[in-house]
Amino acid sequence: QGTRDHPPAQTALRDRLLSAVVSCFKRHGAAAIDTPVLELRETLMGKYGEDTKLIYELQDQGGELLALRYDLTVPFARYLAMNKVTNMKRYHVAKVYRRDNPATTRGRYREFYQCDFDIAGQFDPMIPDAECLKIVHEILSDLQLGDFVIKVNDRRILNGVFAVCGVPENKFIPACSTVDKLDKVPWEEVRSEMVGEKGLSPEAADRIGEYVQLHGGLELIERLLQDPKLSQNKLAKEGLGDMKLLFEYLTLFGITGKISFDLSLARGLDYYTGVIFEAVLLHQENEHVEEPVSVGSVAGGGRYDGLVGMFDPKGRKVPCVGVSIGIERIFSILEQRLKASGEKLRTTETQVLVATPQKHLLPARLKLISELWDAGIKAEMLYKKDPKLLKQLQYCEDTGIPLAAIVGEQELADGVVKLRDVATREEVRM
Amino acid sequence: QGTRDHPPAQTALRDRLLSAVVSCFKRHGAAAIDTPVLELRETLMGKYGEDTKLIYELQDQGGELLALRYDLTVPFARYLAMNKVTNMKRYHVAKVYRRDNPATTRGRYREFYQCDFDIAGQFDPMIPDAECLKIVHEILSDLQLGDFVIKVNDRRILNGVFAVCGVPENKFIPACSTVDKLDKVPWEEVRSEMVGEKGLSPEAADRIGEYVQLHGGLELIERLLQDPKLSQNKLAKEGLGDMKLLFEYLTLFGITGKISFDLSLARGLDYYTGVIFEAVLLHQENEHVEEPVSVGSVAGGGRYDGLVGMFDPKGRKVPCVGVSIGIERIFSILEQRLKASGEKLRTTETQVLVATPQKHLLPARLKLISELWDAGIKAEMLYKKDPKLLKQLQYCEDTGIPLAAIVGEQELADGVVKLRDVATREEVRM
Repeated sequence: QGTRDHPPAQTALRDRLLSAVVSCFKRHGAAAIDTPVLELRETLMGKYGEDTKLIYELQDQGGELLALRYDLTVPFARYLAMNKVTNMKRYHVAKVYRRDNPATTRGRYREFYQCDFDIAGQFDPMIPDAECLKIVHEILSDLQLGDFVIKVNDRRILNGVFAVCGVPENKFIPACSTVDKLDKVPWEEVRSEMVGEKGLSPEAADRIGEYVQLHGGLELIERLLQDPKLSQNKLAKEGLGDMKLLFEYLTLFGITGKISFDLSLARGLDYYTGVIFEAVLLHQENEHVEEPVSVGSVAGGGRYDGLVGMFDPKGRKVPCVGVSIGIERIFSILEQRLKASGEKLRTTETQVLVATPQKHLLPARLKLISELWDAGIKAEMLYKKDPKLLKQLQYCEDTGIPLAAIVGEQELADGVVKLRDVATREEVRM
Repeated sequence: QGTRDHPPAQTALRDRLLSAVVSCFKRHGAAAIDTPVLELRETLMGKYGEDTKLIYELQDQGGELLALRYDLTVPFARYLAMNKVTNMKRYHVAKVYRRDNPATTRGRYREFYQCDFDIAGQFDPMIPDAECLKIVHEILSDLQLGDFVIKVNDRRILNGVFAVCGVPENKFIPACSTVDKLDKVPWEEVRSEMVGEKGLSPEAADRIGEYVQLHGGLELIERLLQDPKLSQNKLAKEGLGDMKLLFEYLTLFGITGKISFDLSLARGLDYYTGVIFEAVLLHQENEHVEEPVSVGSVAGGGRYDGLVGMFDPKGRKVPCVGVSIGIERIFSILEQRLKASGEKLRTTETQVLVATPQKHLLPARLKLISELWDAGIKAEMLYKKDPKLLKQLQYCEDTGIPLAAIVGEQELADGVVKLRDVATREEVRM
């Protein structure tokens, strides 16, 4: 349940998509690493807030207690701490596992690919953070997914908001995960969860409501920096100062047009400590597809300066910021688009089919195809002793092979091969 | 235990190796598929003989009982049956899981990559089988791993041998897995396991011994076809007839020099029904490496005509033959060789570092690097506001970046960039 086989056509499309994402990561100078699908259970515990229950655990068959990785971020932090790496720019494209309720039409599965890019190390503020946003902008633009917006916020600003609204510190994380629902449900529902389930006072909830419904750009940042309450809060001030710097850098990158500073963005995971962001596709009214793909978050990430330290025996911190591309949702969109276009993706790269027009010529085919393979040419033949020529040409048309290399009795006698262009039916002897 | 992280240098080498293998698979016209790492437990049970105990099972957290795939062959057969595919040439490169005793210096892990190529469908005899052997030959030659031999046998010949030696049919599979140990232990030990653990009569064991110690080429096949006992056995006769045909095709491919018909080859798995094969590297005396990598099987496979039918509700069979490349052992060898050569593999593909020679020029760097990225150029910069030029050039040397694009105050005033070749120190203004 919630997993799927990818037949050749899907795998070909996925490979094309993944290679677009990876080439962006490489353009930004990232190296690839690989970590096991299996992690120690204790590595994953206490990192994912309410979602810890979604972790797949392996049966105790003796030896270590294991689980399947839930994301690529925690394994990356574990990797940095274990190998004492304090400085690294890496990408990782691999499958992760979540015992979630699958919603396969919306691209939500229990086994799915993540494409992560992260920058670890102590650097000057907001330069790596800005690059992560640039990467999201490049990938979503390259893939031509339609209009999008990248929402940006900072955990320090959110915590500052909670503090000045009178929320006790031990309720910051629960309040955060409630605010995070604002993109799906209206404020009234979020408010009643805050007051009901999370035990905030109605006054605190109302004060929070005034802040978290704000979004804008540089002018909003400036306004909040002057806010009589927020400007008195150390965390919020730091966050807003860095947000201003981030917007300066994003202006130099020329991408602020797609960036929205949005105080309702909270992100569910526990480990974020600074900037957080999420890219959403905007619904396009003029797209006439029968079942419109529901749009939503297609990339997300943020800064997690404390996570590596949790795995280091001495608690040494390595600041990190990273982004994860939501490849499954993007794949659903591209798949639907391909379907609508009627375009057929080739699933193989075969350049030439080796064919014979008469019987008893299997040895000639085997000899020729062997020469072609040895010369690095992508070649196929039918696995029959005496196939009809028509069947062989039909196979070319069905699978998109552009050329047929034909050896008949005459060609053998003359020491030539007849090369046929399948589409135009033109033939040359060579 | 038995798993490992791959740092960038290893991942780069692995990517290079995998892409060599995949390009061979594509040269032979295979399409890629992808299946989940998770399979239903019942799918995997009864397919791996004695090794079933090595399967990783997931905890029962409600819902289906799951396990991690043990190989890529059983999932492929399950895929064919579930999707009613009767004809397919596919490759699959992915990780598999075995709770084995890890022997990491010999490249044996609990999580490791397999690279599989399989041909499914009803075809004329031995044509796809011959192609699988050609693929092994191409890959091992391309990778320049040194001398190798591909041992070939047929389960039908082995079963015929057991039958004419007086082994009851229900002991064919146990006898098979004992014979399989002949490449590691001497005949005497194999014989005593047959008589002791497997309960064969000493006479039967001795008769088996006379056959399974034979190996050779076409002349051995001809001789066995005349063997007074074997030639009376239907299965053995079929197997020997097909083996003769296989050698004809391999002669046309020009690869019989590396092929040995070896009656001791048995292969451990239950599901083989016809041709089986295994490639081993031959030890090279003249290689002076400090710790010689132990050589062994680097590829294996065979025909499994009954496996797909086990997953079809109506038992419909789809004949299959395939090969699995033992990428981990090959990787160990290549890694050791790279180490010995002192060659340093680049882990990134960055073409240019954007650098500044004076302070307060971060905006100039951000603007230039953004233009480079947008033009598809792989570019990096240091994440510092005011890094020293020497540090920036040092970074190029450390990571192999060939060019530095330098913007200083003068260049900004003149509207140019200074492009520096890091190795030669030549500079051009452009």
